[in-house]
Amino acid sequence: MIDKLIDRIKKTKAPVVVGLDPMLSYVPEHIQKASFAEYGETLAGAADAIWTFNKAIIDATYDLVPAVKPQAAMYEQFGAEGMRAFQRTVEYCHEKDLIVIGDVKRGDIGSTSAAYAAGHLGKVSVGSRTCTAFDEDFITVNPYLGTDGIKPFVDVCREEKKGLFILVKTSNPSSGEFQDRLIDGKPLYEHVAEKVAAWGADCMGNSYSSVGAVVGATYPEIGKVLRKVMPKSFILVPGYGAQGGKGKDLVHYFNEDGLGAIINSSRGIIAAWKQEAYAGFGAEHFAEASRQAVIDMIDDIGGALRG
Amino acid sequence: MIDKLIDRIKKTKAPVVVGLDPMLSYVPEHIQKASFAEYGETLAGAADAIWTFNKAIIDATYDLVPAVKPQAAMYEQFGAEGMRAFQRTVEYCHEKDLIVIGDVKRGDIGSTSAAYAAGHLGKVSVGSRTCTAFDEDFITVNPYLGTDGIKPFVDVCREEKKGLFILVKTSNPSSGEFQDRLIDGKPLYEHVAEKVAAWGADCMGNSYSSVGAVVGATYPEIGKVLRKVMPKSFILVPGYGAQGGKGKDLVHYFNEDGLGAIINSSRGIIAAWKQEAYAGFGAEHFAEASRQAVIDMIDDIGGALRG
Repeated sequence: MIDKLIDRIKKTKAPVVVGLDPMLSYVPEHIQKASFAEYGETLAGAADAIWTFNKAIIDATYDLVPAVKPQAAMYEQFGAEGMRAFQRTVEYCHEKDLIVIGDVKRGDIGSTSAAYAAGHLGKVSVGSRTCTAFDEDFITVNPYLGTDGIKPFVDVCREEKKGLFILVKTSNPSSGEFQDRLIDGKPLYEHVAEKVAAWGADCMGNSYSSVGAVVGATYPEIGKVLRKVMPKSFILVPGYGAQGGKGKDLVHYFNEDGLGAIINSSRGIIAAWKQEAYAGFGAEHFAEASRQAVIDMIDDIGGALRG
Repeated sequence: MIDKLIDRIKKTKAPVVVGLDPMLSYVPEHIQKASFAEYGETLAGAADAIWTFNKAIIDATYDLVPAVKPQAAMYEQFGAEGMRAFQRTVEYCHEKDLIVIGDVKRGDIGSTSAAYAAGHLGKVSVGSRTCTAFDEDFITVNPYLGTDGIKPFVDVCREEKKGLFILVKTSNPSSGEFQDRLIDGKPLYEHVAEKVAAWGADCMGNSYSSVGAVVGATYPEIGKVLRKVMPKSFILVPGYGAQGGKGKDLVHYFNEDGLGAIINSSRGIIAAWKQEAYAGFGAEHFAEASRQAVIDMIDDIGGALRG
């Protein structure tokens, strides 16, 4: 899967991920109204609204980018109906040949991680059949439980040719509270990064591992260090745009081959129509606003990489 | 909610949680067959089988214990249909007046944690209405992202009178890989425990905080230390039974008031019928085997506490 991701990045010339994190407040009123008219102001109505919204964004951007990253929380808040919208979104992205990174941040003891891995990346046995549930291509994983909580995910990645991005240094303001604390002279995030490199050694594609890392755009100096600690790991970089990261800050997340990182923007793209810069599109043309925001983001990052 | 939990523990004399982690392999064949006959060997069939299984276990044990702990992964592996079974399980437990601890181990940046908190403990706005989604009473949360990833959960707990158990020291063999590393002379889990105590100070019930901690039964010496670091935090203790913990190892997880901890067993109870000790019940009477396993667990822990 990592080779497929690299192939798509080369084809689109865009190391960019569209974050499908649809807060209901991002969904234009005409879409909400139509969904509520059909399903009522219910969880099913909300789920239909975010699915309709997602579909329009996907249709307007799928030819520009290699991948999307739906954030599970935004669906899960609407219960099982919301998770159905998550599932539909993943399926539709696959129809459009987009790579799907499920931002689920799961992680548990071994036997439980195995169930998450089966549900999100692999298959489950039901009687004499095998079924797939959410079927993302990559998911994000939390490392707090250590190797035996991670291994079931790595095993499924190897069997199913899928991939992971493991939280190393997150983009939020208080990420340093535990992640930056020094252990034997090195911050915790560096110890986690060393493990990511080790876990990934068994999962190599042609040039990169299927086990990648999450390092926030908001800590560019740390990104520069971590790039070297995990030379074979792709870095998924959240925090661009709305959280403050800019293209010029991100050049050191990439290797000299121009690869090794993929930058996510969520609000900055999917809620572009609500921002001053794209307000001219209006609520009716929200998906075109998102398309323009993707083009601008690709320019910003491409410009920074060309120096 | 913490006061309600304490009240129920006193009434049942059982600081015990039934872990509803229904692997399909724990579900007797006659139940699987009936569900597959109705829904096929599909995700819906699997979800119906685990819901039917859960209902029987709940009916057989609800009068003995204060709380249950469904493990989200075991439902999520069956997709949105599985999450519907999770939702039905939570609803049914509420009908039976059981306290529900959703073992979801979520945790993300602030705005995303807020969505998880709304979906699992609070309410979501849909048009002019507010809806509830999964509506557990407590959930488990992962601390790796620090205070701003935790605060939205704490805020919802205060507003909605719900509660949390934050991962401090997990029960799995490699939990020490990061959690035991020394920072300024103290293991990471102690630093996390200090934060749990601080986060919980704003969420006090009559004698304990609504912000509790997870500390595995498999590390009794650490449990003894952590009991003192977080005197006002309830400790949810996984790892009893199948993972190796025994009642006599757990006395130091409790305070001198006989409160402060609640012990979970999952496989040991719900898959009792597959164990030698309870094999006499047979597959048809699996729920009665579970009831007997709960009675034996309450005896083991009660005996240990009485010394």
